[in-house]
Amino acid sequence: MGRKRSAGDAPNRVAGNGLLDRRFLLAAGAGGGGLTAARHAFGAAELSVEPWMKEPGSPFVGYGQPSRFEATVVRIFASAPGTTGTGASRTPLQRLNGTITPNGLHFERHHSGIPDIDPDAHRLLIHGLVKRPLIFTMEALSRYPMETRIAFIECGGNTGALYQKEPAQLDLQASHGLLSCAEWTGVRLALLLEEAGVDRQAQWLLAEGADAAGMSRSVPMKAVPGYEGNMNVKWLRRIKLTEGPTMTKDETSKYTILLPDGKSLQFVFPIETKSVITHPSPGLMLKGAGLYEISGLAWSGYGKISRVDVSADGGKSWAPAALQEPVLPKALTRFRIAWRWDGGPTVLQSRATDSSGYIQPTRAALIAERGAKTIYHFNGITSWAVGEHGEVRHVYA
Amino acid sequence: MGRKRSAGDAPNRVAGNGLLDRRFLLAAGAGGGGLTAARHAFGAAELSVEPWMKEPGSPFVGYGQPSRFEATVVRIFASAPGTTGTGASRTPLQRLNGTITPNGLHFERHHSGIPDIDPDAHRLLIHGLVKRPLIFTMEALSRYPMETRIAFIECGGNTGALYQKEPAQLDLQASHGLLSCAEWTGVRLALLLEEAGVDRQAQWLLAEGADAAGMSRSVPMKAVPGYEGNMNVKWLRRIKLTEGPTMTKDETSKYTILLPDGKSLQFVFPIETKSVITHPSPGLMLKGAGLYEISGLAWSGYGKISRVDVSADGGKSWAPAALQEPVLPKALTRFRIAWRWDGGPTVLQSRATDSSGYIQPTRAALIAERGAKTIYHFNGITSWAVGEHGEVRHVYA
Repeated sequence: MGRKRSAGDAPNRVAGNGLLDRRFLLAAGAGGGGLTAARHAFGAAELSVEPWMKEPGSPFVGYGQPSRFEATVVRIFASAPGTTGTGASRTPLQRLNGTITPNGLHFERHHSGIPDIDPDAHRLLIHGLVKRPLIFTMEALSRYPMETRIAFIECGGNTGALYQKEPAQLDLQASHGLLSCAEWTGVRLALLLEEAGVDRQAQWLLAEGADAAGMSRSVPMKAVPGYEGNMNVKWLRRIKLTEGPTMTKDETSKYTILLPDGKSLQFVFPIETKSVITHPSPGLMLKGAGLYEISGLAWSGYGKISRVDVSADGGKSWAPAALQEPVLPKALTRFRIAWRWDGGPTVLQSRATDSSGYIQPTRAALIAERGAKTIYHFNGITSWAVGEHGEVRHVYA
Repeated sequence: MGRKRSAGDAPNRVAGNGLLDRRFLLAAGAGGGGLTAARHAFGAAELSVEPWMKEPGSPFVGYGQPSRFEATVVRIFASAPGTTGTGASRTPLQRLNGTITPNGLHFERHHSGIPDIDPDAHRLLIHGLVKRPLIFTMEALSRYPMETRIAFIECGGNTGALYQKEPAQLDLQASHGLLSCAEWTGVRLALLLEEAGVDRQAQWLLAEGADAAGMSRSVPMKAVPGYEGNMNVKWLRRIKLTEGPTMTKDETSKYTILLPDGKSLQFVFPIETKSVITHPSPGLMLKGAGLYEISGLAWSGYGKISRVDVSADGGKSWAPAALQEPVLPKALTRFRIAWRWDGGPTVLQSRATDSSGYIQPTRAALIAERGAKTIYHFNGITSWAVGEHGEVRHVYA
């Protein structure tokens, strides 16, 4: 990897190959044309009066839609052969800059399409090892106290392609897009379980959805946010308290990690600490040497992200990125660091640490421990090579 | 107002007429059928297999849309005579439970419709009292460091009807719906101004939009979030640094507060501390005596909400509501408190306090100071009367 240093950026250098102090671009020194991304102008005469300023714009609508110029900022999706709703759609992370996924772009994983549920007819049953089986209408649920939290959901199979022997040439949406973050509001399950009266021997619960697949998973009676996406059962119609896991088809045929010795890890629930650089990323281009912001997302099913380090020299040196406040537990966290690209080829990486002290492993360390026979729970450090023309591609480094 | 006390709720009472301690419903005492909103069931046989479980659901789409059963959860809007895009649309706050507005439901205020802007052709000019006038493409802007924050926007004319002599019989969307909250990402204006080099005598800036109305406002060169909605100029094409306000049509013909003596308050920028109960609210019904959650929104253009008090007896007694964490500055804050409604008529109110110590005034106090000749910046305490059949209506109390 080519690596040049200019005397000019030395005071702000925090790691090799142009990474700059996270305060650099917001400090006084950045002014005076320091970024030079803008062009010098001569005043208002330079502004064209564009066609959209010469006629009234479009009218109000009840539910807003994106501009036609954002027609490519959509989810991509694939369904199983012979179906239209058995598969997954992916969030275009490389086109987003914040942490909360726009509603229309949240990733989805369906097992038999989106059921056309009438909320007035929908019911939730809590039964099994309880003193009083209860059945709730949506109206009854709406009377309970609610709680709101911002949380990510990631499919346990997200980034499964990164176990492959050769680096998959995918854009970020195709490689990492089974990941989204939203604000969720609802009734705490603990409160409903208390209403039903939990029997002492109940340790697990079965959660079943009201889709045609009857998608169901066994969940230990502990905290659920941060667990692999599939455990966040949608269209919930039934919760059955049980002594142990139910061993449904959705948890035995899938979501187990096949180890090199042929054994499997079953019930690996929390999403491990993970991060990825979203800008730049494969499919995006750097347009010439100069200042850029490296930006990305970090998340952990164990708690808060406490630190993200970035390398611009393939892991030889690292510098801490700025974390966008508020940093919330089990939510996507945006990190950012300024970078002066010298125009030479290099490799960019990010490495997250969470509040439990867990540090995102290298891909090599992850595979040394777990092998590469599975597609689940890949959380190794991801490497983007930047070429001399500014093109970005996925590499193993 | 009828007011009964039962001996049973005394230990958890925190204010008159059934307001319960904010920890009540999450404490052990709430269990054992304490809420009784659910019906006793006899097990899985009680669940019907509904039609949507008998056939595959609908397929994936690129940009998600709400269920057809949410067809009424949309913005309402009105345009000026002879136009389709000069007016405002309103968020259905009474149908939402969190703090962040779904993208398609964010309120909008347009002066000549939604311009069909091509991002590749769009430019932002910074000129006036600067050393180097600069012109930015969207691509140039995307290279600067970004910042993400969650912030509310409220139209300065929101709840203007509450100045009227008689309480307007409107639902929450019609009375309060020019209020939304979103996650915003962009480049700090301070950074771009520094690139241009601010002249010493520049104290204000003119912000102009790229719509056909050329909507423009003068903004003091200080913090902008928390200022009345109109100052958050959309489709920004021009920032001109000036010594004083430009006195554009959008700031002289509107957004001034006419006082009782015929003088006006001009340039009242921050949204004052304010709150409203969203559940229950006019148009929603309470279905019989029993436990409910009173829930609402509080916000302040001065900083964080530090406290919200709720009264269930028309202001005679008050109790602090729980504030949903994280409480963020200049963002909507959700408050909640448990309430055992005895079935008698009463009046519900909320009163917010912010981190600057400002306390939301009564409507009477606000009008005593400011009169009622304006439609702007109403932030008085709002009162919902609950009738004996559970109906909710707007009253002055």
